[in-house]
Amino acid sequence: MRVVVPFAAETPKTRLESVFSPDERSRFASAMLADVLRAIAETGHKPTVVSTAPLAVADLELPEAVAAVTSVAVDERPLTDAVNAWLPGGDGAADESGATGDPDHDPVAVVMADLALATPDALEGLLTTAADVAIAPGRGGGTNALVVRHPAFRVDYHGTSYLDHCEIARSVGADLETVDSFRLGTDIDEPADLVEVLVHGRTSDRALARLREFGFALDDRDGRVGVARETDRASE
Amino acid sequence: MRVVVPFAAETPKTRLESVFSPDERSRFASAMLADVLRAIAETGHKPTVVSTAPLAVADLELPEAVAAVTSVAVDERPLTDAVNAWLPGGDGAADESGATGDPDHDPVAVVMADLALATPDALEGLLTTAADVAIAPGRGGGTNALVVRHPAFRVDYHGTSYLDHCEIARSVGADLETVDSFRLGTDIDEPADLVEVLVHGRTSDRALARLREFGFALDDRDGRVGVARETDRASE
Repeated sequence: MRVVVPFAAETPKTRLESVFSPDERSRFASAMLADVLRAIAETGHKPTVVSTAPLAVADLELPEAVAAVTSVAVDERPLTDAVNAWLPGGDGAADESGATGDPDHDPVAVVMADLALATPDALEGLLTTAADVAIAPGRGGGTNALVVRHPAFRVDYHGTSYLDHCEIARSVGADLETVDSFRLGTDIDEPADLVEVLVHGRTSDRALARLREFGFALDDRDGRVGVARETDRASE
Repeated sequence: MRVVVPFAAETPKTRLESVFSPDERSRFASAMLADVLRAIAETGHKPTVVSTAPLAVADLELPEAVAAVTSVAVDERPLTDAVNAWLPGGDGAADESGATGDPDHDPVAVVMADLALATPDALEGLLTTAADVAIAPGRGGGTNALVVRHPAFRVDYHGTSYLDHCEIARSVGADLETVDSFRLGTDIDEPADLVEVLVHGRTSDRALARLREFGFALDDRDGRVGVARETDRASE
């Protein structure tokens, strides 16, 4: 099964701009992408990064075995259009080798690049479903990951995409399964989400390493759990 | 297995006070409790509400089969102390019949009363684990539900309780399993969490019915998904 990972290479994680410098945002987004690619590769599938701008796999500093199965395709279109091109029965999209996406109807998975908690086990739970469409929802009605086996299903990431995708599946006669996973349901989008990386990140995770390198640590001094940077704490 | 559901009867859901009247908060909290009790009963287990104040099961308007297996115990102590009394090897606590908690070492589950998305399937995933301690973490490092089979394990809900519970398990030599569930990981605590009830609530859920009765609906007019009340919309 092809696993597509959309990546906004030019505007990574803008909602984290209050806590990261532009350079840090970019490095953190790349670290999350690297973790997601590794988790996918560890399930035995080959990830294709669909990036809004050229991206060198070598720059992601992936483990050799992960880099060997990872490909990159550039697609400047909005997320919905770029993903739809890769779905079974989609119009295809050129990857770096010049090969097109799936003109045949093989199932395709789409996994967001900011699922920093994704593990091979959590992904297996999604990838091994048998439904025409399987969705791992995120908070706020988002669609964090999905598997599409039905040739008429198309995504629409605008708004409450989880509900829209349920409706689209119904409208094309596709059966749908919702995958219940905290790890896949956690996209790292806002400063408060960084807590999840610090709590649930595995020691081998690149995103966790970056956060620590940037000086972030858990902070529950006010009774609620948040994050703080060393510099914040030093200035008090 | 006894399933304990702690319930703050006197100060329900204070962090929702910006969107609910006190009466609404109380009714919404009771509705979530009723949904949780029903889901537990549907797994074949008997829930015990450990309430900070007297609570009549009849007032919860539970389905008859659920009411028949639900009991209430009053314990005014803080959450951590009240729960520890019920754990295997705990000091016990009187329930409404005057019987004490488990002086024997039967496993005990603790499920928070605000897990409005809890389904029998999601709970089964927790209740059927074999580990000495199994935890379904919530966002922000919380412990939304757990099963304790080890007589020396005790809870501590203060701060990043998930990490603390991992550490406590290690310190008493208990093996630990983390249960990966979006449904159990979603506690309804803040106004933004109401989105989850509106998106994932089942039509038979009392909490969803209450939200609709109060006039809440999904609102994605500004591109992000939130909730709005009819009164808010009418005033624009």
